[in-house]
Amino acid sequence: MIAMPRRRKRPIRPGLSPGTITVDGKHTKGPVRITVIDYDASNFSEKEVSTLEECFPYRDTATVTWINIEGLENTEVIEKIGTHYSIHPLVLEDILNTGQRPKVEDFENYLYVTMKMIRLASPRPEIQVEHVSFVIGPNFLISFQEDMTGDVFDPVRARIRKEGRIRKFGSDYLAYALIDVIVDNYFLVIEHLEEVVEDLEEDLVQNATPALLQKITVLKKKMITLRKSIWPLREVASGLEISGSPLVHENTRIYLRDVHDHVIQVIDTLETIREMVSGMIDIYLSSLSFRMNEIMKVLTLIATIFIPLTFVAGVYGMNFEYMPELSWKYGYFAIWGVMISIAAVMILYFRKRQWI
Amino acid sequence: MIAMPRRRKRPIRPGLSPGTITVDGKHTKGPVRITVIDYDASNFSEKEVSTLEECFPYRDTATVTWINIEGLENTEVIEKIGTHYSIHPLVLEDILNTGQRPKVEDFENYLYVTMKMIRLASPRPEIQVEHVSFVIGPNFLISFQEDMTGDVFDPVRARIRKEGRIRKFGSDYLAYALIDVIVDNYFLVIEHLEEVVEDLEEDLVQNATPALLQKITVLKKKMITLRKSIWPLREVASGLEISGSPLVHENTRIYLRDVHDHVIQVIDTLETIREMVSGMIDIYLSSLSFRMNEIMKVLTLIATIFIPLTFVAGVYGMNFEYMPELSWKYGYFAIWGVMISIAAVMILYFRKRQWI
Amino acid sequence: MIAMPRRRKRPIRPGLSPGTITVDGKHTKGPVRITVIDYDASNFSEKEVSTLEECFPYRDTATVTWINIEGLENTEVIEKIGTHYSIHPLVLEDILNTGQRPKVEDFENYLYVTMKMIRLASPRPEIQVEHVSFVIGPNFLISFQEDMTGDVFDPVRARIRKEGRIRKFGSDYLAYALIDVIVDNYFLVIEHLEEVVEDLEEDLVQNATPALLQKITVLKKKMITLRKSIWPLREVASGLEISGSPLVHENTRIYLRDVHDHVIQVIDTLETIREMVSGMIDIYLSSLSFRMNEIMKVLTLIATIFIPLTFVAGVYGMNFEYMPELSWKYGYFAIWGVMISIAAVMILYFRKRQWI
Amino acid sequence: MIAMPRRRKRPIRPGLSPGTITVDGKHTKGPVRITVIDYDASNFSEKEVSTLEECFPYRDTATVTWINIEGLENTEVIEKIGTHYSIHPLVLEDILNTGQRPKVEDFENYLYVTMKMIRLASPRPEIQVEHVSFVIGPNFLISFQEDMTGDVFDPVRARIRKEGRIRKFGSDYLAYALIDVIVDNYFLVIEHLEEVVEDLEEDLVQNATPALLQKITVLKKKMITLRKSIWPLREVASGLEISGSPLVHENTRIYLRDVHDHVIQVIDTLETIREMVSGMIDIYLSSLSFRMNEIMKVLTLIATIFIPLTFVAGVYGMNFEYMPELSWKYGYFAIWGVMISIAAVMILYFRKRQWI
Amino acid sequence: MIAMPRRRKRPIRPGLSPGTITVDGKHTKGPVRITVIDYDASNFSEKEVSTLEECFPYRDTATVTWINIEGLENTEVIEKIGTHYSIHPLVLEDILNTGQRPKVEDFENYLYVTMKMIRLASPRPEIQVEHVSFVIGPNFLISFQEDMTGDVFDPVRARIRKEGRIRKFGSDYLAYALIDVIVDNYFLVIEHLEEVVEDLEEDLVQNATPALLQKITVLKKKMITLRKSIWPLREVASGLEISGSPLVHENTRIYLRDVHDHVIQVIDTLETIREMVSGMIDIYLSSLSFRMNEIMKVLTLIATIFIPLTFVAGVYGMNFEYMPELSWKYGYFAIWGVMISIAAVMILYFRKRQWI
Repeated sequence: MIAMPRRRKRPIRPGLSPGTITVDGKHTKGPVRITVIDYDASNFSEKEVSTLEECFPYRDTATVTWINIEGLENTEVIEKIGTHYSIHPLVLEDILNTGQRPKVEDFENYLYVTMKMIRLASPRPEIQVEHVSFVIGPNFLISFQEDMTGDVFDPVRARIRKEGRIRKFGSDYLAYALIDVIVDNYFLVIEHLEEVVEDLEEDLVQNATPALLQKITVLKKKMITLRKSIWPLREVASGLEISGSPLVHENTRIYLRDVHDHVIQVIDTLETIREMVSGMIDIYLSSLSFRMNEIMKVLTLIATIFIPLTFVAGVYGMNFEYMPELSWKYGYFAIWGVMISIAAVMILYFRKRQWI
Repeated sequence: MIAMPRRRKRPIRPGLSPGTITVDGKHTKGPVRITVIDYDASNFSEKEVSTLEECFPYRDTATVTWINIEGLENTEVIEKIGTHYSIHPLVLEDILNTGQRPKVEDFENYLYVTMKMIRLASPRPEIQVEHVSFVIGPNFLISFQEDMTGDVFDPVRARIRKEGRIRKFGSDYLAYALIDVIVDNYFLVIEHLEEVVEDLEEDLVQNATPALLQKITVLKKKMITLRKSIWPLREVASGLEISGSPLVHENTRIYLRDVHDHVIQVIDTLETIREMVSGMIDIYLSSLSFRMNEIMKVLTLIATIFIPLTFVAGVYGMNFEYMPELSWKYGYFAIWGVMISIAAVMILYFRKRQWI
Repeated sequence: MIAMPRRRKRPIRPGLSPGTITVDGKHTKGPVRITVIDYDASNFSEKEVSTLEECFPYRDTATVTWINIEGLENTEVIEKIGTHYSIHPLVLEDILNTGQRPKVEDFENYLYVTMKMIRLASPRPEIQVEHVSFVIGPNFLISFQEDMTGDVFDPVRARIRKEGRIRKFGSDYLAYALIDVIVDNYFLVIEHLEEVVEDLEEDLVQNATPALLQKITVLKKKMITLRKSIWPLREVASGLEISGSPLVHENTRIYLRDVHDHVIQVIDTLETIREMVSGMIDIYLSSLSFRMNEIMKVLTLIATIFIPLTFVAGVYGMNFEYMPELSWKYGYFAIWGVMISIAAVMILYFRKRQWI
Repeated sequence: MIAMPRRRKRPIRPGLSPGTITVDGKHTKGPVRITVIDYDASNFSEKEVSTLEECFPYRDTATVTWINIEGLENTEVIEKIGTHYSIHPLVLEDILNTGQRPKVEDFENYLYVTMKMIRLASPRPEIQVEHVSFVIGPNFLISFQEDMTGDVFDPVRARIRKEGRIRKFGSDYLAYALIDVIVDNYFLVIEHLEEVVEDLEEDLVQNATPALLQKITVLKKKMITLRKSIWPLREVASGLEISGSPLVHENTRIYLRDVHDHVIQVIDTLETIREMVSGMIDIYLSSLSFRMNEIMKVLTLIATIFIPLTFVAGVYGMNFEYMPELSWKYGYFAIWGVMISIAAVMILYFRKRQWI
Repeated sequence: MIAMPRRRKRPIRPGLSPGTITVDGKHTKGPVRITVIDYDASNFSEKEVSTLEECFPYRDTATVTWINIEGLENTEVIEKIGTHYSIHPLVLEDILNTGQRPKVEDFENYLYVTMKMIRLASPRPEIQVEHVSFVIGPNFLISFQEDMTGDVFDPVRARIRKEGRIRKFGSDYLAYALIDVIVDNYFLVIEHLEEVVEDLEEDLVQNATPALLQKITVLKKKMITLRKSIWPLREVASGLEISGSPLVHENTRIYLRDVHDHVIQVIDTLETIREMVSGMIDIYLSSLSFRMNEIMKVLTLIATIFIPLTFVAGVYGMNFEYMPELSWKYGYFAIWGVMISIAAVMILYFRKRQWI
């Protein structure tokens, strides 16, 4: 249900010169989609470009330029951007490193923010985790997305097109808007998880099978993964808010505080779900053992009642020549009486001790 | 037993412009009740108003004005207040966001405080959690309550009417009084939970059923929820106390310290109850297993005694032509003796090993 | 074994004006005992007074005055003291609030310290927890005790009477002496608990019954309560030591550091006991299950040996007309041989696998 | 699978004068391999030397000199280095102390860094932990490796030979490059562990044996060891980054921040694996108990069905003279009917309660 | 195995004037051994004195004087030292309080350090914990040992006699040397514990008995005690290192940093052992339950196979007059065939489900 990118992670080639731009240690020219949105309060243009060079003229204009790059498998594109926008090689390495944990770094001329875009992808709500990076300069923002399977930024694009408040602010507000929409999607994911937990809890009461435990365990592992992705965001949000960087304007800080607040809310809820999942394992084990005990109790009671009776029957099945009871006229019926009495006494005793 | 508002929570519409005032993403005109109390040391007036505009004249008077708004489903009212009192759109969003965790924020002209009002509602003491916000200005306080089902502020209203100490102080003291009465109600809730725990503990000794475990689990979940609602209040109380805001007077700080103290006391007790509830699950499991073991032991003992006897009876039920014992005169009685001896030896042995 | 005052706790009447002096919400005139000790290096007087007014003249003398008030159910007395010594209403409320956690508060003219007096009361060493408060002024100290059942201050009284070092110092040293003697009593309580734990551990080895688990659980709850009472004292002791209050002289600080040290020692030991108690529950459960397993193993072995034998006997109890073995001369004895061999083989096998 | 050096650890000879250079308390002349790489932007030389003295001339040149010493069992060599480069005796002691935890220490003329080199050694990927130390001077770096079995530094050597960026920087950048390649190898080890965990998880589902538990336990212990080796590195990396030492240039700090980041990533993943391993023990225990329960249930059901039937058969095996059923013509078939009915009713009942 | 001094602990006599020098509340004249070592770079004298007064002349010489006092049961000696060297009464109390936790206190004229000397005493390596205190003055050091059973200081004495580096430094370096040798002995104790743990682990695999659990529990308790003794030493070592006291020279600080480092190493290892011991309890319980399950499974299988067979035999033991099978010629052999088939089918089924 969680599609964690296992393949590329950190391009681990121990000893590579730092900032070497590779995918799985190789220079590649994978597919990439580049879109540019350029705007200020009065102007707006949006286009998909085929070569990176088309974006470069925007660098020196006063308008805000948002370059969105989807797909990280084309090392040439990443390198060109690095050169043109003077981005530190280590940042380029982190952009490609899909195992990188969320962080914010302040280079004098730009801010580097990386985080995870987590969203519910159809079909069958599946949690998709995607590595996203932002390079925020004075009048530009470059976003890097791991995959080309779409993103959560459409509402922001719509707001830019509509000439909303966002058009009046700079690249820092745009960064805020993108981070905010990512965090908003965390809420949807969390809500989905809460539903999954509730469904599991209902199943738990009725049907405690190992398959269910498997599901709980999978859920627990997802929680661990999500937590690892979201927890460090706390410092990212507050880091942006309290950073003294001149790239972040006073107005925007209050919005970043709001994002920080939302991240904490997500984390709180995540912890709550974690506690509930932990509790479920306990309930699973105890309900398993309770049900088993119930079965064993009933079965053992049946056995316990019949074993003495069988003994009695066995006694009168013996072939001794001299067994006086055998020749009594009502011996057979008497022995039935005895056996029924034994059974009755045992049942009464079990009832009294509340075993039945 | 806990009525958690599940419906509205955060108005999650990822990508909405921040500060967009919506309920479930829509502009609504739900029911709302607005009451105004205006007072200073010598004057007092109280009324329920039908339109928000009736409140506005109070803004510019020197008296303290308390506007209480019940019901958050009318976005128009919230927006008007926002405009008239120059409240930041993000604050308005938080006022509506019933999933918001307690916090205090210092805007230059006003303080924003949000917390949970937790109270025991009849019938059948039920814990009700309501999202409450305060906007505290120099001479006004606006309180926002999630529901119209009543609140815990009546004692404060009574004190204002009676011309008590509260009339001599400003809006900060009023805020303190309202927060204090909310925290006082936490004590009642906590006390109720302590009683529930004690009842459960008694049940536990007598009757360890899965239904009881279910109850304990529900209680545990409640504890998690309450904790999530109350824990952040710690920082709220101390945040207000130590904030350098000129809106909080020196006199009031000592009272806020007292509230802080009470919050810690609530949290301490909550943690104690949590530990007790955790312990109960252990006791539940162990008493379950002890009782089961007792049953199995007795039943197995009965079976164990009779199985060898049944074997003996079986032996003399064999149809061999030459079985000397069968023709002994007292063979039958001798075999009874043997069987009784076997049973006796076994019972003595079990007794010696303290199995019975 | 722990007599926790459940009754009065915090006088919860939500919305009461802060600092309202009530017991269970009422003004009461319960019993109260007031004693006054007045001393300096050369003078000493001690008396029990019947009305509070008799104490007031001491306020303005240079000698150190220790007013000890036992019993908190007379609101009139508390109020009078509050008025005469200008004590903040919130402090008066805390003095009465027996659920108040330990704390120290610095008001300019006096220090307020509250803590728990925990002692072993006879008969049958029972742990008694009492709410104690100190108001420490420049030349006076007022102590408030929850009950009239005695206290732990007698050794301090004796030292004052004997003209010891204590007579040369001020009210701050007296406060230290009283706090120190309270903390010293914690050691006795802790030692008592250690003995209880050791006794329980011995029982555990011999006799793991649910009654014992009950005892362990009760002990665990006691530990939680004690911890709650003692833990915050850490900050109280260091708070007094490092406070810049002119009421605490340099000389006394070194003694307060010593108290701080002792409190940490108590807490350390408390934690050690807690870990031991936690471990006991594990041992309880495992010894329970080990013993049960031992029983079941033996019983099941007996059953397992006899069930095949019974089958053999059953075979030769069948009434087929043509069963050649039945007419063999030594058939019966042969079958005994077979049965004994089966039993022997099984026993040897069980021994080899170390099941017996 | 982890080859932890157990032998030499700390040369514990309590009371030895600090800085005494011994191996297991003795002066030894064990094997040692010394290689020297000397370079600046334009020059490069590399050689293996047989006596330490050959390295000394490099000390006073302006080029960067990297002296690599493999094998710590020759105390004479270590002492000579200590004398020639004025290294504090305690540092020499730490270089030999293979149990030393990672740390960084700033001596005015040089920095001392020690950490663990953890790598996958063939055959059969085995985790090898080696104690490594760096003494970083203004224009030299001396590295000490515990064993002569190879290291992870080859890629760095290759980069120096190739006249890469590394040739333009000083000894601090060289230190960074070596630390970085060590940390990169942690990723490989972590990845290997993740695979081990995944394999174990698959086994767990199919085959929960004590042997598997043993494996999990071994893995758990490895995790503890690795954690102990890696965790303190966090402070080492940040310590180097934020140290005010003039030996670390501004340019290098950004690279050290990157290392710090990677260390945190390693630790995060390690914690995730730890949680997964912990979860596996729970799953192991529960799947064990579930499987056992399944077996017991089926077996007990079989027994429970046949025991009453055996009783019925026993009844009609009795030898009473007057047992009317015995002479009925279809008695035998009727009793078969009765027995089949009993069995059928029981099976239906068990099915209804979902026991089968 | 750990000989914890239970007797004297803190001389708890609540309310005693602070600094009252008593043993179990009494003034005693127990045995005591006093040795004096006096040295500087060129001179050295060592003697055992019978009366304390013989030491006093050394106080005013420039040489370093180390007075070692073994045995704390002579209150007179302690008091005399206190008077002569102007030691604060609270320090004297702490010297006698064998339950005192490790700490360092800075009095202007001297430093007070107290810690635990933990060593392996023969016969049968037994862990012995002894309370040790140091009073460190400008040119003297007084050490107090709880017992007269020897100490770990001999190597230091030897180094002083040999005119080593130690002779060139002051009392602070002597203090370092003594603390260092104590911490070095912790390593030996820790190593011993590691061996104990390894032995227990091997036993665990072969033989999970309650006696073993008892051993593990004892070990766990020892760990708790050791931890309590060693953990606070962390702050002691760093406290000495970073204290601004003029009594600790710059040169010595670097050595104290080394001690601090070693203490952390000890604590790390202690925590590792603790985790291993915790894990052992889990393994114990699960191996117990696994073994039990194995037994029960085999036994139940045997019973399950024979119970249906016994039923079949029972059927043909019935005495109905008309049972056609009985008169069939090969009925008996046919029924054997039936029974063997039933058994075979069951065994095959069990095998298929991997129960055997």
